[in-house]
Amino acid sequence: MRFKPGDRVRVVKDDVVYEGIVLPKTEFSSEDIIMLKLDNGYNVGLSVEDAQVEVLNENVVSFEFEEPSQTFFRGGGNLRISFLSTGGTIVSKVDYETGAVKPAITAAELVDMVPDFKNQVSELEVLEVYRLFSEDLTPKIWEELSFEVAKRVKSGVDGVLIAHGTDTMTYTAAALAFSLRNLPIPIVIVGAQRSSDRPSTDAVLNLKASLKVFTEAPFGEVVVSMHGHTSDEYVLIHRGVKVRKMHSSRRDAFQSINDVPLAKVVFPSMEFKLINDRYIPRARLEDFELINRFSDEVALIKFYPGFECDLIDGLIDKGYKGLVFEGTGLGHVRNACVDNIARASELGVLTVMTTQTLFGRVNLNVYSTGRRLIKAGVIPAEDMLPEVAFVKLSWLLGSYNHLSVDEIKRLFLRNLVNEINYRHEDFIYPRWYHGD
Amino acid sequence: MRFKPGDRVRVVKDDVVYEGIVLPKTEFSSEDIIMLKLDNGYNVGLSVEDAQVEVLNENVVSFEFEEPSQTFFRGGGNLRISFLSTGGTIVSKVDYETGAVKPAITAAELVDMVPDFKNQVSELEVLEVYRLFSEDLTPKIWEELSFEVAKRVKSGVDGVLIAHGTDTMTYTAAALAFSLRNLPIPIVIVGAQRSSDRPSTDAVLNLKASLKVFTEAPFGEVVVSMHGHTSDEYVLIHRGVKVRKMHSSRRDAFQSINDVPLAKVVFPSMEFKLINDRYIPRARLEDFELINRFSDEVALIKFYPGFECDLIDGLIDKGYKGLVFEGTGLGHVRNACVDNIARASELGVLTVMTTQTLFGRVNLNVYSTGRRLIKAGVIPAEDMLPEVAFVKLSWLLGSYNHLSVDEIKRLFLRNLVNEINYRHEDFIYPRWYHGD
Repeated sequence: MRFKPGDRVRVVKDDVVYEGIVLPKTEFSSEDIIMLKLDNGYNVGLSVEDAQVEVLNENVVSFEFEEPSQTFFRGGGNLRISFLSTGGTIVSKVDYETGAVKPAITAAELVDMVPDFKNQVSELEVLEVYRLFSEDLTPKIWEELSFEVAKRVKSGVDGVLIAHGTDTMTYTAAALAFSLRNLPIPIVIVGAQRSSDRPSTDAVLNLKASLKVFTEAPFGEVVVSMHGHTSDEYVLIHRGVKVRKMHSSRRDAFQSINDVPLAKVVFPSMEFKLINDRYIPRARLEDFELINRFSDEVALIKFYPGFECDLIDGLIDKGYKGLVFEGTGLGHVRNACVDNIARASELGVLTVMTTQTLFGRVNLNVYSTGRRLIKAGVIPAEDMLPEVAFVKLSWLLGSYNHLSVDEIKRLFLRNLVNEINYRHEDFIYPRWYHGD
Repeated sequence: MRFKPGDRVRVVKDDVVYEGIVLPKTEFSSEDIIMLKLDNGYNVGLSVEDAQVEVLNENVVSFEFEEPSQTFFRGGGNLRISFLSTGGTIVSKVDYETGAVKPAITAAELVDMVPDFKNQVSELEVLEVYRLFSEDLTPKIWEELSFEVAKRVKSGVDGVLIAHGTDTMTYTAAALAFSLRNLPIPIVIVGAQRSSDRPSTDAVLNLKASLKVFTEAPFGEVVVSMHGHTSDEYVLIHRGVKVRKMHSSRRDAFQSINDVPLAKVVFPSMEFKLINDRYIPRARLEDFELINRFSDEVALIKFYPGFECDLIDGLIDKGYKGLVFEGTGLGHVRNACVDNIARASELGVLTVMTTQTLFGRVNLNVYSTGRRLIKAGVIPAEDMLPEVAFVKLSWLLGSYNHLSVDEIKRLFLRNLVNEINYRHEDFIYPRWYHGD
């Protein structure tokens, strides 16, 4: 009883017979439900339980990219903007008429959703690069996506917007930040914690704020534009290598860690406020560079009490070339594992230490465990987030695989795009509620 | 050239000959340095580089527990307190006269350090249970430690204090919370981010606050007593299953996540303020229970883009009985891994989903990835911290190994010691700095 979207099927359920075309699943649809477009034009959802399904004809309709995946809008402004969509809640939309999952979004729909585009763009390109849940992204996709972005940057657009699921946005932001260098324009990654067809969506303001970044930001960095507040007070523009999704559902889930957001866009005044003066200024277009190979032979390992040290050997034997540890406190793992890590180093595997506290900085010089780790070859990742250190190592091993281990180690320790913040002001540590 | 503490050695370095006893390393001492107690009574530290070391006699002195590991103090108050030391910065102290690492701390030294004990205790027991870096703790040690605590609880003491390294304090706090049930007294875990022999130490106030917990707290829970502020304004009393080390070095590194701390002790007034009325009241002594087996066949796995799904099979084949995932957002891993997780379930391996956002709650009913994970047998860990879910599963698999997988699953979903908070007020999410 195998069937797939586009097949014409007959379903018998509770003695009733249905015939129609199987509609594609959306990210919101249940596994147990088969959605049918009946011949009378109506859609029906049937529980597959106790249903008999017979495929009458395969591939009657192709739902894949049934509408153009690249659309344009010409407006009355002077900005050339490219909007690249990878998927995620921000572009999740079911066409309730046809029941099909539409290509992410068209230029016309985007302009409808955020009318500011109408007056401000001269040309708006909307391209669906992927239609993926962000948890399904891979280093390979970072390569392809950064290539697509680079093409637009080189063509001289005024801004590239990337619609992205929020789940792994941190990782993609870091990947783009390391691969798109000397940027003449900001690259803005934008998502939504509430889908665009809900009244409570945060998509619109996050997108509006992006336009302000293109016109007013002095920086040429990869940034994330997301709500800074549960209400619609302001949107924060976070540095891509210093931001993290810190809440599973709140609209203000994205927060800068060990750094201050670069800017905020206040509503309804639409004022753009730079709040961090440590930024990379826009570069000249001719200096722009794309360095975008990522290794998939890097693992991120969270340490925990009782962690079995031979899991490290297992990863080495599987061919991993880089191991990023999320250690405890100042950057520790149990002493029993130091020999396994030393073995990794001997075999040319790079090992990096970050901390599961997230806030603060790794320091391997305070305790003897740390000093033993340094001797075993571990690279301290300073105040980099574990996720960012993971992406950086994947990028270095992919893009600089002609270099020696020692040279890559040196590059790892270099602050390339402000992924390291050497100065932590007291106020960048958030304030918790401690009673009245 | 193997030598160890207690050996009598001859060291030749830069043409100078030294003879003496090798002193034990402290957690602050460098790997490269050999510390010698010379015959004239002085200590000298020599870099082992280019040094020749010859062992003259082995085990001339035994430094292990050279001083009594259990000491007592009788004071003028009426509290019976047990202080169990496991190691860590709070008890790190080098005896600069002998150069030896002294047993953690004696009762007399503790009273010297925190004179409040003098007037308040009738009997103070100080026992060094371990002398370990907290990163070296294991589930086995949680069993032994909880057993030692239970003995004191049963003997009717008014409070048990546990000195612990801060690195894995979260894990131990959760382990004790699950194993010590129906507590008639609070169990206070205390640590320090600055060692006790430094003027800036936070140890003293954290210990002072513990005394207030024993005398004033209405709850019978395992709690963590640590600074709530960079200055000495107040100490927070966190629920053991809702606290996390959130900074690698700050004195206010420990914060409650998805919950409000149970109480705070304000200085210098020493006022005890209950700030969370959701607590477990002190139980009757006769209802106290110790349930303390922990399985070491549980792994905590952080998911990241490109995560190789067959790593899951590797863990199953190695004999793991429980896998706790730190997924993305509402609790996702890539769709490619769902089959591997389903295989785990088929083989009777329990799988649990937590979120790497730390804040917020797992919800596997919103997106199709989540629903597929539920079908594959994944248990959603609600708003439990990944570390706490890891400990809970280790405890369930260890202590209830006579139960079926389904029964353990049901127990996992039950809120046993407030490790689940069903109601998240807006103010429990911390406030970040977003500019002025």
